[in-house]
Amino acid sequence: MIIVLKPGIARKQETSILREIRKLGYKPHVMHGVARTVIGAIGDELTHQSLETLAGVFPEIVESVIPVQKRYKLVSREAHPEASTIQVREHVIGGKKFHVMAGPCSVEGEKQLLQTAEAVKAAGATILRGGAFKPRTSPYEFQGLGEKGLKLLAKARRETGLAVITELLSEQHAELVAEYTDIIQIGARNSQNYQLLIAAAKTGKPILLKRGLSMKIEEWLLAGEYVLANENANLMFCERGIRTFETYTRNTLDLSTIPIIKQESHCPIVIDPSQGAGRADLVKAMCKGAVAMGADALLIEVHPNPAEAWSDGAQQVTPEIFAELMRELRPLIAAAGRE
Amino acid sequence: MIIVLKPGIARKQETSILREIRKLGYKPHVMHGVARTVIGAIGDELTHQSLETLAGVFPEIVESVIPVQKRYKLVSREAHPEASTIQVREHVIGGKKFHVMAGPCSVEGEKQLLQTAEAVKAAGATILRGGAFKPRTSPYEFQGLGEKGLKLLAKARRETGLAVITELLSEQHAELVAEYTDIIQIGARNSQNYQLLIAAAKTGKPILLKRGLSMKIEEWLLAGEYVLANENANLMFCERGIRTFETYTRNTLDLSTIPIIKQESHCPIVIDPSQGAGRADLVKAMCKGAVAMGADALLIEVHPNPAEAWSDGAQQVTPEIFAELMRELRPLIAAAGRE
Amino acid sequence: MIIVLKPGIARKQETSILREIRKLGYKPHVMHGVARTVIGAIGDELTHQSLETLAGVFPEIVESVIPVQKRYKLVSREAHPEASTIQVREHVIGGKKFHVMAGPCSVEGEKQLLQTAEAVKAAGATILRGGAFKPRTSPYEFQGLGEKGLKLLAKARRETGLAVITELLSEQHAELVAEYTDIIQIGARNSQNYQLLIAAAKTGKPILLKRGLSMKIEEWLLAGEYVLANENANLMFCERGIRTFETYTRNTLDLSTIPIIKQESHCPIVIDPSQGAGRADLVKAMCKGAVAMGADALLIEVHPNPAEAWSDGAQQVTPEIFAELMRELRPLIAAAGRE
Amino acid sequence: MIIVLKPGIARKQETSILREIRKLGYKPHVMHGVARTVIGAIGDELTHQSLETLAGVFPEIVESVIPVQKRYKLVSREAHPEASTIQVREHVIGGKKFHVMAGPCSVEGEKQLLQTAEAVKAAGATILRGGAFKPRTSPYEFQGLGEKGLKLLAKARRETGLAVITELLSEQHAELVAEYTDIIQIGARNSQNYQLLIAAAKTGKPILLKRGLSMKIEEWLLAGEYVLANENANLMFCERGIRTFETYTRNTLDLSTIPIIKQESHCPIVIDPSQGAGRADLVKAMCKGAVAMGADALLIEVHPNPAEAWSDGAQQVTPEIFAELMRELRPLIAAAGRE
Repeated sequence: MIIVLKPGIARKQETSILREIRKLGYKPHVMHGVARTVIGAIGDELTHQSLETLAGVFPEIVESVIPVQKRYKLVSREAHPEASTIQVREHVIGGKKFHVMAGPCSVEGEKQLLQTAEAVKAAGATILRGGAFKPRTSPYEFQGLGEKGLKLLAKARRETGLAVITELLSEQHAELVAEYTDIIQIGARNSQNYQLLIAAAKTGKPILLKRGLSMKIEEWLLAGEYVLANENANLMFCERGIRTFETYTRNTLDLSTIPIIKQESHCPIVIDPSQGAGRADLVKAMCKGAVAMGADALLIEVHPNPAEAWSDGAQQVTPEIFAELMRELRPLIAAAGRE
Repeated sequence: MIIVLKPGIARKQETSILREIRKLGYKPHVMHGVARTVIGAIGDELTHQSLETLAGVFPEIVESVIPVQKRYKLVSREAHPEASTIQVREHVIGGKKFHVMAGPCSVEGEKQLLQTAEAVKAAGATILRGGAFKPRTSPYEFQGLGEKGLKLLAKARRETGLAVITELLSEQHAELVAEYTDIIQIGARNSQNYQLLIAAAKTGKPILLKRGLSMKIEEWLLAGEYVLANENANLMFCERGIRTFETYTRNTLDLSTIPIIKQESHCPIVIDPSQGAGRADLVKAMCKGAVAMGADALLIEVHPNPAEAWSDGAQQVTPEIFAELMRELRPLIAAAGRE
Repeated sequence: MIIVLKPGIARKQETSILREIRKLGYKPHVMHGVARTVIGAIGDELTHQSLETLAGVFPEIVESVIPVQKRYKLVSREAHPEASTIQVREHVIGGKKFHVMAGPCSVEGEKQLLQTAEAVKAAGATILRGGAFKPRTSPYEFQGLGEKGLKLLAKARRETGLAVITELLSEQHAELVAEYTDIIQIGARNSQNYQLLIAAAKTGKPILLKRGLSMKIEEWLLAGEYVLANENANLMFCERGIRTFETYTRNTLDLSTIPIIKQESHCPIVIDPSQGAGRADLVKAMCKGAVAMGADALLIEVHPNPAEAWSDGAQQVTPEIFAELMRELRPLIAAAGRE
Repeated sequence: MIIVLKPGIARKQETSILREIRKLGYKPHVMHGVARTVIGAIGDELTHQSLETLAGVFPEIVESVIPVQKRYKLVSREAHPEASTIQVREHVIGGKKFHVMAGPCSVEGEKQLLQTAEAVKAAGATILRGGAFKPRTSPYEFQGLGEKGLKLLAKARRETGLAVITELLSEQHAELVAEYTDIIQIGARNSQNYQLLIAAAKTGKPILLKRGLSMKIEEWLLAGEYVLANENANLMFCERGIRTFETYTRNTLDLSTIPIIKQESHCPIVIDPSQGAGRADLVKAMCKGAVAMGADALLIEVHPNPAEAWSDGAQQVTPEIFAELMRELRPLIAAAGRE
């Protein structure tokens, strides 16, 4: 850690800070600069207590405390220089092949789900998405079909051969959801619900971790660290838009996360343009950008009749538009060196 | 709902939208304006499906869809024009008496907790705070003493007579935490963890619901609605700072929530200046503003030795500063018409 | 405009609002809904005074006022359904040909500028960027070479045949800058400096208008409206990143502006990935996304020796990396249907 | 500056970075830590070139570069430990007496202005605000009466004895505005229009510098530095709300700026609750908070008939509400130790 002292600090005050640093287990190293004194505190920041408290406790002496080490380990490229790949049934995510996960926001019934599953499969998707448990802003909105929805997803898998991804909302459903799904999705609102992350990790299933609405990259990586630290190495990050001041779109899809996650971590990165924009008419362009920038997969909401969808109709595309999108993505996937 | 059509829409397209509106259960009412046609869709928005999907599905016809009703009911002033008060042991929150909840960020041990409890009680606090289960950004940070921490809180209550507030992190601990605490705190990261909100509500204990880092007022009220809709009327809102672009403070404490919550809801509003600023040196000024603006209570982190606190030391004040703060608040509490 | 009344409003209060609406020149049209009364106020919102004041003035009666018309006219697709193209010397921006504008953040001297100009030309750029007047956060930082910088840009144009773009900072320099440059750039910090926009528009030169750090799409389009309303039709929008809570990158480059500007406006859209990310290592990926999503041009900072650049070295790429980038962009430009 | 190297850097790479640091005029000081090597670069950061470019230029060696010195000097408390006071006619801002500046958003005519001036004076205001040049988001909105408005302000000053504050929009009007006003206001949109700041500073008039919508504290202080560095010591900062994700209010008034500006700078701090909330019904509570937290003055919009105001009617209060507010502030002003 680096401790920056205020200008004009007396030797006595400096000494008291040095004592405190030693007490917390670090070895201090003083540099007297032109305008300020800076102390390097040598010690492992991951195993020692943080010195950041010093700024709050001695505000008249300490100007700022700056950590030097990264706080995440297992998810980092440093720990694992090669890109990780994740096996999902016969598919490999994070490898040369580009994947598309598609399906309705919510599972609403057998006909809706099977019809969508067949359509997205025909267009080239390999994984079927569909919410059985839905986190809704209002208690009066449709909360998902629950286990019945999971069973429909399993049926769709049997009939189409698509793998399945669905969201886990409650620690108490971890076993149940894991029984039916191939990938467990952790939604944006639960991205720092660490108890849920631990429960999901322990099922051993691959985890797709969405970025929270106002989650910094570092916090997202640390949330992922909870998965790997609980002995589940099958983690994917999924960008789905952050909250900003802009109101034209529901969220601001931050595509810079693609090169950033690739740089900081070995885990695959998936882009969700449906949540990201909240508007079906922007989905196509967003997908194209994601492919060109090196995303490993897309997660797209498709509904046979979005106007009558039970949730988030405004951002779901029809099977026809989805098929069109898949055709338009082909040359970009090739240009990005993927299959 | 109000549906605004794009300019120059043909009569046939208008008719198809009217048909869709009727199909979803609303009665349309057309107004041909100067530049655009606007359709009022009459029907109860809380019981009918949203028309907002129309904008996504017919982007070439519909420009925007605007809800007219508020989505929250039970938490609203409309539903309950008088201010609600909450009984916590012998105390009433939301009434004429102003309350201060204070104590350490984390319960670290018996001596630390009892010493703090006695100090905050002597200075005028009525409720003791202290985290037994801690949600930490990194899996490698101190996660709380768990049940042992709860027992220490109960002991501190016995010895000082202070009521107790502590955070609930997991649905699976709802009963356990309720057994020991007088108020259940739902933290910012779990503010849209609806399963947790429901589990907490069902214990029947008073709930203090912190605002999420990027939660809009409407979403916060709707999260509160989950508590009231699960038959627990004892809800307090707690502002603890939102995430903005500013980096000088850890969060931006949004004190405008005090008049806003008072206007929109009948539930009490509590301010947490410790999390709000993330800096002990700003806590005093923040508290003064909160009191003057009409907050019902404060939630303040106090630690006997912040430099060595096991969590968030930079934002905890010492018992001495806390006592000073309480003295300085007195004339403001009086000026605000409270006791 | 749509005026939503609070629930339970008495007939007398409704009448007083109707009177106010008529007084401000609109024709009211009342709809009694299930939960609330809604009034459609018919009249041209661009020529009449806004009714939005009603919510502030009668807070006990009016819940909200919602404008229906778009506030921008000349920049809108509605006004001009075809895409506009802009002639810059022998080049056309906004047409089939994709353009790259490249060069140093600041003009530092003859050798630096000419060397960069030749390198970017060789790699395929058609327009040379370079700041002669620099807006700097601190008064103690390098403020640009001023007129001397403009002369060097003109010299580089003569020697390489590249067109030139440079920033205008002061109304008082509008004529001077126009004399030397082919495109006038308005920077993010001045994006709502309307006096500067008017002065720039009046020179008749093409204008590249950067998005302000916290500018909503609507405000950006309205700032562009100042240019077109001052009789200059040669406007390009340039996205350069917005300010969010994220600190990993300097700004969050909002690539969704590409499809949005294409949808709302007829003016070309340019992407600046250098400012957008503030990190040279992310520039390549950002450029690829921009091309795939349909941008008309890129604006890239290139410096022969970024470590010693007089401004913003961290985000400038070397001529070698620039040449590599241009090669890698080629297949994506083709896949996007551009040349 | 502190330069943090990536883990596992070879001695040769370290040497090349040390060479670069020396070349840019700093003396390097190496610390080999547990996980990373950290280099302290000793030299005056205000007079030397920034080393921040190193992170962009050597991304494979350098992890981050952290400045140690503050970039502002003249506005800082370090430079001037005592609070500055500003003489405005017979008034002193920043001293024991609390001041209220009030008046209409725009000067609309003689009657409107004089009537308001008399009312605010009667209620206790000492300074009259009123916009003669108005920066408007749309070119079709009322742009202010210009010089005619300035003359009306001068007339109101003669008739009431109130001092006057008005906004400067254009460098070209600096002399003109200075002739009529007692304080020059720089608005949020122009807060980083440095040419305007310099022109305003050079008039010698006191400057009230509003915070930009997405301006960090450091940038605001540096914008103020432009005023002091141009030999005008009469600077006040004015918080008027920042842009966040929240849409309930137009902006989020950041009252934490009061203790922060007091801590970092010697200049007075003024709060503008009208712009800050954008809603008249929140103005009172905001003013109370500002007073309790130690603001030096308030800037409040008052209009005799807000519903018919030519700009921003929703946030202007009536003279009656203003008088009520002034009465309610009295006990808080006393409790805050002001007059």
